[in-house]
Amino acid sequence: MGWSARHLLDVEGLSAADVDELLGLADSFRSAVDQGIQPDARLQGRHVALLFAEPSTRTRLSFELAARRLGAQTYLLDPPSSSMVKGETLTDTVRNLDAIGFDMLVVRHHRSGAPWVAARHFGGHVLNAGDGWHAHPTQALLDLLTLRRAWGGAADALRGRKVAIVGDILHSRVARSNVWTLTQAGADVWLCGPTAWISGFDGLARSLPSERQLRVTDDLAAALRDADAVMGLRVQKERMSGGKLSLVEYLERYQIDANRLAQARPGAVYLHPGPINEGVEVTREVCLGPRSLVLEQVRNGAPVRMAAMNLVCGPQTSSATRDLSSAIR
Amino acid sequence: MGWSARHLLDVEGLSAADVDELLGLADSFRSAVDQGIQPDARLQGRHVALLFAEPSTRTRLSFELAARRLGAQTYLLDPPSSSMVKGETLTDTVRNLDAIGFDMLVVRHHRSGAPWVAARHFGGHVLNAGDGWHAHPTQALLDLLTLRRAWGGAADALRGRKVAIVGDILHSRVARSNVWTLTQAGADVWLCGPTAWISGFDGLARSLPSERQLRVTDDLAAALRDADAVMGLRVQKERMSGGKLSLVEYLERYQIDANRLAQARPGAVYLHPGPINEGVEVTREVCLGPRSLVLEQVRNGAPVRMAAMNLVCGPQTSSATRDLSSAIR
Amino acid sequence: MGWSARHLLDVEGLSAADVDELLGLADSFRSAVDQGIQPDARLQGRHVALLFAEPSTRTRLSFELAARRLGAQTYLLDPPSSSMVKGETLTDTVRNLDAIGFDMLVVRHHRSGAPWVAARHFGGHVLNAGDGWHAHPTQALLDLLTLRRAWGGAADALRGRKVAIVGDILHSRVARSNVWTLTQAGADVWLCGPTAWISGFDGLARSLPSERQLRVTDDLAAALRDADAVMGLRVQKERMSGGKLSLVEYLERYQIDANRLAQARPGAVYLHPGPINEGVEVTREVCLGPRSLVLEQVRNGAPVRMAAMNLVCGPQTSSATRDLSSAIR
Repeated sequence: MGWSARHLLDVEGLSAADVDELLGLADSFRSAVDQGIQPDARLQGRHVALLFAEPSTRTRLSFELAARRLGAQTYLLDPPSSSMVKGETLTDTVRNLDAIGFDMLVVRHHRSGAPWVAARHFGGHVLNAGDGWHAHPTQALLDLLTLRRAWGGAADALRGRKVAIVGDILHSRVARSNVWTLTQAGADVWLCGPTAWISGFDGLARSLPSERQLRVTDDLAAALRDADAVMGLRVQKERMSGGKLSLVEYLERYQIDANRLAQARPGAVYLHPGPINEGVEVTREVCLGPRSLVLEQVRNGAPVRMAAMNLVCGPQTSSATRDLSSAIR
Repeated sequence: MGWSARHLLDVEGLSAADVDELLGLADSFRSAVDQGIQPDARLQGRHVALLFAEPSTRTRLSFELAARRLGAQTYLLDPPSSSMVKGETLTDTVRNLDAIGFDMLVVRHHRSGAPWVAARHFGGHVLNAGDGWHAHPTQALLDLLTLRRAWGGAADALRGRKVAIVGDILHSRVARSNVWTLTQAGADVWLCGPTAWISGFDGLARSLPSERQLRVTDDLAAALRDADAVMGLRVQKERMSGGKLSLVEYLERYQIDANRLAQARPGAVYLHPGPINEGVEVTREVCLGPRSLVLEQVRNGAPVRMAAMNLVCGPQTSSATRDLSSAIR
Repeated sequence: MGWSARHLLDVEGLSAADVDELLGLADSFRSAVDQGIQPDARLQGRHVALLFAEPSTRTRLSFELAARRLGAQTYLLDPPSSSMVKGETLTDTVRNLDAIGFDMLVVRHHRSGAPWVAARHFGGHVLNAGDGWHAHPTQALLDLLTLRRAWGGAADALRGRKVAIVGDILHSRVARSNVWTLTQAGADVWLCGPTAWISGFDGLARSLPSERQLRVTDDLAAALRDADAVMGLRVQKERMSGGKLSLVEYLERYQIDANRLAQARPGAVYLHPGPINEGVEVTREVCLGPRSLVLEQVRNGAPVRMAAMNLVCGPQTSSATRDLSSAIR
């Protein structure tokens, strides 16, 4: 029993037990950090390359800090280029990184599926730090840890809780990964946004196993009613232009302000994966308010990534490695 | 007794005893480095983020080396952007860096006061690596160490010495910070430059406590007479345009060449915080000559920063932390 | 006896015994890496600055990994600028890096001779990571290690072997350095390419000591006949324009495909220093084929650089340092 994946490419290959093991370890790392206790250097002598074809200072720093807290060394590829050499394919880049001698590869890429390509050509461990619109496993796991800690910390803390995810669902890897982990944890998940940004998700809802609860609506009031948590998503203005949606209309219908948050269940919390467009998807008042878990999410980032790195290449994986990537795609 | 500040934002909050303690520690680090002795890893397990909104390879490397000599880990934010995300405020960036898990933050910023903003939102330690035209505390401290070492090393080595600071005083955070530390150390400080670049400093001179010696003049000959040290400042050509000053005129009246340095006291030394415009504020002959302390200044950079990092977060600060920043602004 | 150079600027100053010692050490590091054994942290407390005026992610990462595997700390200068400050000379940059406190400097520069300039002004150790068209010592050494390992591993494994280097010889520092090490190892080296890219090398061939075998030809068939190894070089299209050579003509006459490789000796291997223009100097089939040693070359990169770093600043150099740079130029 226990974690046996060589990579962390997606949350969809993780069983409830896998998730529990990871969150339990992450929670203990979080406690250690809070108390100023240094964890063992379990990844000493490991060398981690960070390939961020899409820039993200925050996520990159969180992965770097996680790796180094465990004693690993981190290396940045030159950020502006997705490949090491102009014209070089991702495959060639990854094969070279493997041959140079890296043990672990953290990949963020604008192309969905890029981490799977990387995993095929890399001898060590690959972690997906966000690929296209597809998946962002460590974000979903840290969101789950944040909610679990906010609601008492038990493994079944999310069961029966209603979580409304609001905004540009269509282009969001965060939403896709969260749908998986939140419904697996027993939450009743609602996806809410303008029609253009939720179309097609009804199909996803119908395709889920029957014990999983997923609803899709363009009616914010319905999504907020009795919600225990509201999760905002970044709205990118360039995705509005050309569509039938104006920014003003979005603010009027979907921006989360104090009044709207009050329509949710008393004590409902607000989450957002960041970076936040303050004044667009949420008001500053909510974002900095007492129910905001936004900085808690950031605080749980490094501990979750420490747990992921530890599990994919810890000693427990050496005997019987199972590559989840092949099971998924 | 002893250092008790949680941050190093400015030199103006440091007592003479604080400065002495820091320079004493820096001097011992400098000796260790010169002898190839590795200092204890006192900052092991500490994670230092370097936020350089204004690029400065030299200062950044000096801080990085200082942190790592003491066992800390360093992390660079992507240099071109002052915030982690376009449109994100400094406040948001700092709150996120705090939540990600960093223990120390080194800030260089084009906006005066930025490190104070950072200190308000960061749970760990903030060091000012230069803010706008305002302050550059570690530079002033390393300049002081350099002069003290050049003049025998005693704590009162600067008493009664005349130091002429020549150039663009107005836009110089180095000049502002040096005025404070040099006059505190008992030096007779002269600020000298074209009228446009010294205007207003008479007021500063009058506002200082009466035991401090500060003179302001546009007459280089007066500033150099009997000077024990001449400190050049970088002249930026773009600050000349639009003014009444031409580059040719500046060279004629203020450039420090061997003849002019000879007008100072025999054995007078030359300092410059760098980067130097050779052939503008100083000739190559002086800059590379036997009285130049320019590379000595650079050599004292990492030791002074090691001392600063050690004192702001060393064990001696844990019991009774006093935040100098609130005392200053 | 044994290594005594303070720098590694070129291969031309290395005796056969020096090369053997370095390759032996590199080979043992390669074995350790392959077996997952961590080498001793022999360079703990050393601080290595990487000055890459010419960007090269792959070579930079290989040097970084090599340094850190031995316990050293690495620091990147801001990549886009060759000097730390616009207008600053390389000499000033190096003097400052020395004063900041670095122990080792890895230099890649578009200007031939830059590492020699650096070595004159740097108190520690300088390693040449490629200068202009001139030299690329660690590449030549890793190529040599790769061939030696492919051919049984003995020190005389290359004696009597024919190695054909094909492509843009004229602009290639890799070719220049390889000519030295391969002929020193007893190989029969052929330089082959279009006339414009081999002109002048006849003179080099004649100037070599008589026991060294170097031939120059524009006839690929002659170069390939009985060759034990074919080494491709990167072809840069911008070096074709203006000349009499078209890309189509190059492909027709010099591209290495499976048919052409079959003209070499059975079992002949293919090498390329990278980055490869697939479909120009070589086909994808050859490059990824069973006789390709391209990734082996990459794998030998960090071990060779570990050996170089260890030898230039290991304890054995402390007693009697000899600066090879002065012996060479």
